[in-house]
Amino acid sequence: MTDFPAPLSGSAQDETLALRPKFDAAGLIAAIAQDVETGEVLMLAWMNAEALSRTLATGRATYWSRSRGEIWVKGDTSGHTQEVVEVRVDCDQDAVLLKIRQTGGACHTGRESCFYRVADGSSLTLAGDPEAG
Amino acid sequence: MTDFPAPLSGSAQDETLALRPKFDAAGLIAAIAQDVETGEVLMLAWMNAEALSRTLATGRATYWSRSRGEIWVKGDTSGHTQEVVEVRVDCDQDAVLLKIRQTGGACHTGRESCFYRVADGSSLTLAGDPEAG
Repeated sequence: MTDFPAPLSGSAQDETLALRPKFDAAGLIAAIAQDVETGEVLMLAWMNAEALSRTLATGRATYWSRSRGEIWVKGDTSGHTQEVVEVRVDCDQDAVLLKIRQTGGACHTGRESCFYRVADGSSLTLAGDPEAG
Repeated sequence: MTDFPAPLSGSAQDETLALRPKFDAAGLIAAIAQDVETGEVLMLAWMNAEALSRTLATGRATYWSRSRGEIWVKGDTSGHTQEVVEVRVDCDQDAVLLKIRQTGGACHTGRESCFYRVADGSSLTLAGDPEAG
C-alpha cells in the first residue's frame, strides 16, 4: 500500500477518518518519534509513501534518508530499533507522530535523544549538564 | 539576529555548542511544540531564520506559515499563545523542539493537540475515543 488517496482541502482534511497523507514537493512528510513510556521526543526524520506504508505494515519505524536517498529501517545497521506502538497524524496530515519503544539510543551519536542541546541565544548547552541554564 | 553561522559537517555539527541551524532549500527547519508539563506533542510547524530568531528573542513561539507565506506569531489571531520555556536543537540542527506552555488549544481546529487521530492501516480513529483501537 503506497498509493494513498489524495489529501482533501481545508476542514475536510482535518476531519477525515481516512489516511490521506500530504507529502511535500519532495514526496516526504515529517515523522516525530516519541518514547511511549517517558514522553521524551527522541528524533525527527522523514518518510516517503513507502516508508509510511512499511511502518504501518511492519510496526518497525521505517524512514526515508534524505542524505543517502534510500529507505532506512531504523536499527537495521545500529541495532537501535523502534517498535511502533501507535501512529498519529496531524490535522492536515503532513506530519506523523510515532509512539515507540526504543532499543538503545535513538540518536546516531549514541545519545538517547537527538535533542540533547538547549539553545540560549546563539549558544548551546548540553541538556542535563549541571553547568547549563 | 537572523544571520546564523553556517552549519558544520558531520560530527562537528553534532557536537558544536554554537547555534548553527541547517535550513532546507526553502530556508526552513521543522519545529516541534511539546507541552512542558504533560509531555504531549502538540504540533509541528516550520521556522525560517527570522522566526527562530524571534522565538529565541521573545520567548513566544513564532513560525513561518508555508501556506500564507508569512511570519506567524502563534496566538496573535487565536489568542492561543505558546510561551517558550526551552528550545532544543537536534544533532544536525535541522529541527528544533520547543518546550512550551500552551494557552488554549494548539490546533487550529480547537483541539488541544494537532495529533488527535490514530492511524490503523488506511483508516483513522479519534484518539481517546472509546471505540478506537
